[in-house]
Amino acid sequence: MNTSAGAKGARKRGRRSGGRSGNIRGKGSAITQLPWSLPVNRDRPTEPLTEEGVQAVHDGAMRILEEIGIEFLNPEAADILGKAGCIVNGENVRMGRDLVLEQLKSVPTSFTITPRNPERRIEIGGDRMVFGNVSSPPNCSDLDRGRRTGTRESYRDLIKLTQYFNCIHFAGGYPVEPMDLHPSIRHLDCLYDKLILTDKVVHAYSLGKERVEDVMEMVRIAGGLTHEEFDASPRMYTNINSTSPLKHDYPMLDGAMRLARRGQLTVVTPFTLAGAMAPVTMPGAVTQSMAEGLAAIVLLQLVNPGCPTAIGTFTSNVDMKTGAPAFGTPEYMRATQMSGQMARFYGLPLRASNACSANCPDSQSAWESVFSLWAAVSSRVNMVYHAAGWLEGGLCASYEKFVMDCETLQQVISYMNPVTATEADIAFDAVKEVGPGGHFFGCAHTQERYETAFYSPFLSDWSNFESWEEKGAVQTPERANKIWKQIIAEFQDPPIDPAIDEELQTFVAKRKEEGGAPTDF
Amino acid sequence: MNTSAGAKGARKRGRRSGGRSGNIRGKGSAITQLPWSLPVNRDRPTEPLTEEGVQAVHDGAMRILEEIGIEFLNPEAADILGKAGCIVNGENVRMGRDLVLEQLKSVPTSFTITPRNPERRIEIGGDRMVFGNVSSPPNCSDLDRGRRTGTRESYRDLIKLTQYFNCIHFAGGYPVEPMDLHPSIRHLDCLYDKLILTDKVVHAYSLGKERVEDVMEMVRIAGGLTHEEFDASPRMYTNINSTSPLKHDYPMLDGAMRLARRGQLTVVTPFTLAGAMAPVTMPGAVTQSMAEGLAAIVLLQLVNPGCPTAIGTFTSNVDMKTGAPAFGTPEYMRATQMSGQMARFYGLPLRASNACSANCPDSQSAWESVFSLWAAVSSRVNMVYHAAGWLEGGLCASYEKFVMDCETLQQVISYMNPVTATEADIAFDAVKEVGPGGHFFGCAHTQERYETAFYSPFLSDWSNFESWEEKGAVQTPERANKIWKQIIAEFQDPPIDPAIDEELQTFVAKRKEEGGAPTDF
Repeated sequence: MNTSAGAKGARKRGRRSGGRSGNIRGKGSAITQLPWSLPVNRDRPTEPLTEEGVQAVHDGAMRILEEIGIEFLNPEAADILGKAGCIVNGENVRMGRDLVLEQLKSVPTSFTITPRNPERRIEIGGDRMVFGNVSSPPNCSDLDRGRRTGTRESYRDLIKLTQYFNCIHFAGGYPVEPMDLHPSIRHLDCLYDKLILTDKVVHAYSLGKERVEDVMEMVRIAGGLTHEEFDASPRMYTNINSTSPLKHDYPMLDGAMRLARRGQLTVVTPFTLAGAMAPVTMPGAVTQSMAEGLAAIVLLQLVNPGCPTAIGTFTSNVDMKTGAPAFGTPEYMRATQMSGQMARFYGLPLRASNACSANCPDSQSAWESVFSLWAAVSSRVNMVYHAAGWLEGGLCASYEKFVMDCETLQQVISYMNPVTATEADIAFDAVKEVGPGGHFFGCAHTQERYETAFYSPFLSDWSNFESWEEKGAVQTPERANKIWKQIIAEFQDPPIDPAIDEELQTFVAKRKEEGGAPTDF
Repeated sequence: MNTSAGAKGARKRGRRSGGRSGNIRGKGSAITQLPWSLPVNRDRPTEPLTEEGVQAVHDGAMRILEEIGIEFLNPEAADILGKAGCIVNGENVRMGRDLVLEQLKSVPTSFTITPRNPERRIEIGGDRMVFGNVSSPPNCSDLDRGRRTGTRESYRDLIKLTQYFNCIHFAGGYPVEPMDLHPSIRHLDCLYDKLILTDKVVHAYSLGKERVEDVMEMVRIAGGLTHEEFDASPRMYTNINSTSPLKHDYPMLDGAMRLARRGQLTVVTPFTLAGAMAPVTMPGAVTQSMAEGLAAIVLLQLVNPGCPTAIGTFTSNVDMKTGAPAFGTPEYMRATQMSGQMARFYGLPLRASNACSANCPDSQSAWESVFSLWAAVSSRVNMVYHAAGWLEGGLCASYEKFVMDCETLQQVISYMNPVTATEADIAFDAVKEVGPGGHFFGCAHTQERYETAFYSPFLSDWSNFESWEEKGAVQTPERANKIWKQIIAEFQDPPIDPAIDEELQTFVAKRKEEGGAPTDF
């Protein structure tokens, strides 16, 4: 077991004293980015299901819960559900729709999560939309070094990008798995890095009680909170996946229940690939996904009524020739929109993803990701996981794709600026002043607004072909490559109280001495 | 003047006898594509303007027409408008909202256009959406030969792609300007090629009476129609642009009136770049665009009440640092959506574009185009111009981009398949059969549907990284390059009656002898 790449080592390698949180103001020499903001999605969602369709999906999900049941591979969970009136048969748990609908009443439709920097508080639910970094790929890639296994160094690089970009609102799972850190202590080093390199909302993997408890404790320390303060409102979150079809595994349920007891958010995301782990029909896959998701949410509401819970959708199709998952497809879009309808029907916040299947940051990666992104917008998704950096169906975090995705995220955020039609917006007087055949560059109406009228991209090249060619005909990934290098080179840690940093280091050191989390290797 | 590359020469070079219309069945060895279909956009459009906002844009447009006026640089047009009660002051024409709203009553909200092959009939209006090829760039490019001035050869290549892809419903303007054809006879050779190489709806440029009349005559001949039959229903269309702000030029109005008299479609598309030719505020740019568009539509309804007319939107923003037009931006999307609201308010079919600013078919080109495409979908646009092949803000037609765009168009078409939630869709029995921990590959519900359940892309590479790398790590443009070469190599002309072909050739030869269209060089 190699624990030598410890917290102190990381600190020495990566941190500079006196770091300032310059990025929050949208400044920095690498790029000019949008300021931190919490986008509001005011548009009517796209709703492919009729009202009867919504009822049919609901009824199907209820029949699954009532007549087939969900396997809860966690005796404590099965016990809690049994006591609430579910029919428990070994691991199989069947629950009636009355119980489900009753328990859904206590789910908050919206809530905030407050990280160690309260200015980075995020709101989940309603018409709010927040974005998080790519999470959990085993590999990373960039144009210089190619594709490789994740390390602590690449993990830290991608966390720095997560912190730098204001369009990334929360730090999801590990943006790449640091395979050079032993799994027993990986969560300690990773969370230390994350809590030092970012001041945004963080996530805990529900992979065993020690990991979950350690992360909650570190988030509490980082926030300078008492245990009571930590428990009083959401400070972090976990995401659990069902083992579709119809199964919830032990550690996921265990972690979720631990967070629920302390009032922290659990996102329940069934992984329902239509034709593989779910029916080949998209409404069928969504139905099964709802049944799986609701089952866990009912459990968490029984554990701690009113605790924040959200449903996630990861319903997509597979390539029926190879079984490979596909993302950003027409089917994925419709499944996300149907999930949005069902989430609103149940009063649950919704999580989706900015996913693609492409193997490199080329045009396919862009169209697949943008299809996923507009699926999220048109479904009124509240949390977009994997919003920046995802490639290969989630198997690789690309540095360049991260930067490219932040460009499109910024555009979506700008798209969400309110549209108004005041007299000044209609601009009759300006049209009159300029008149037929004139131009608007010079008129007062333009001069007063031109600096802020339009979104200004940091990555798109809008020069004409001749200028673009003269500058070397640089394509988008190469431009993104230059940008991430500059961001990482200039990165400064967000400020943290040295006493809190010390307390985190002490905690990490103590837990490493105790062996971290048990592993079977 | 070089007229040597005549119709017969082209025929000899490009045609094979006995061509079959195999593509219509979605077959062919280059790719497996979707069959020809007319997509129906059932989703509720996205509507950024409130009802009051719609009224404000309407009122602004009416005030422009009433108080400022539009310049009609065509005495005949001004005369017609004057006789209808407009206040004509030289070229300036002011019209009252009563006249506008009265004339809009006769505009058909939907209609069909029937090309020489009635199976390629398209419907315009309502919830129908059709796609056309990139039109009018002076340059073309491909990965092998780079960027170059358009020629008849490249024109013909891109027309073949237009015909080949079933997701391209109409043959818009020249997909690239064939600069090796003298402007006086260019329209004759181009239309001959177009009418032979495609059997889809074609377009006439409104650039002088000879060109317009020649094209109408050639479309009539190609359809085997009498003059009365041609005039009885739409067979083709033109697009006219205003010279924003507030001006309609002579040849555009002349061409539009000629088509209107014969019952053919005119799309009126103001070219209102916010901050340059229109107010810097997007609702203001849309307001001006509506005023310009409605003014010409009123004229055409006076010329021939009930003739098909549509409004186009080309409202986008410019880079305020350089003045360069930008496309696929957040502002472009919102302007398109607002234009959709206004088009529905006025009962007019709407045209938009699949535009981007990128200089090569990289990821920027993809995200900009896909933003434009979703703008069209969410605005309930009826005709999407430039749907395949556009680069550089319209200055270049890319062979590879054409293929890439057809991939995303196919995905949009698949997205528009109706979503149903029947008992078989909900698939409760399949979920019960498979049960917890099973898989759906083998179950009857999947087996009965898997071949057609999901859209299957022809260009996306969904293989895993290792296979993709082993196959040479081929990026999207390179894959598209291979595809267009195969399509062009295998291309077969759609069938045409040899007598009609002969008649077209005779007409072209006669008109060339007469000198074609006058030019000033």
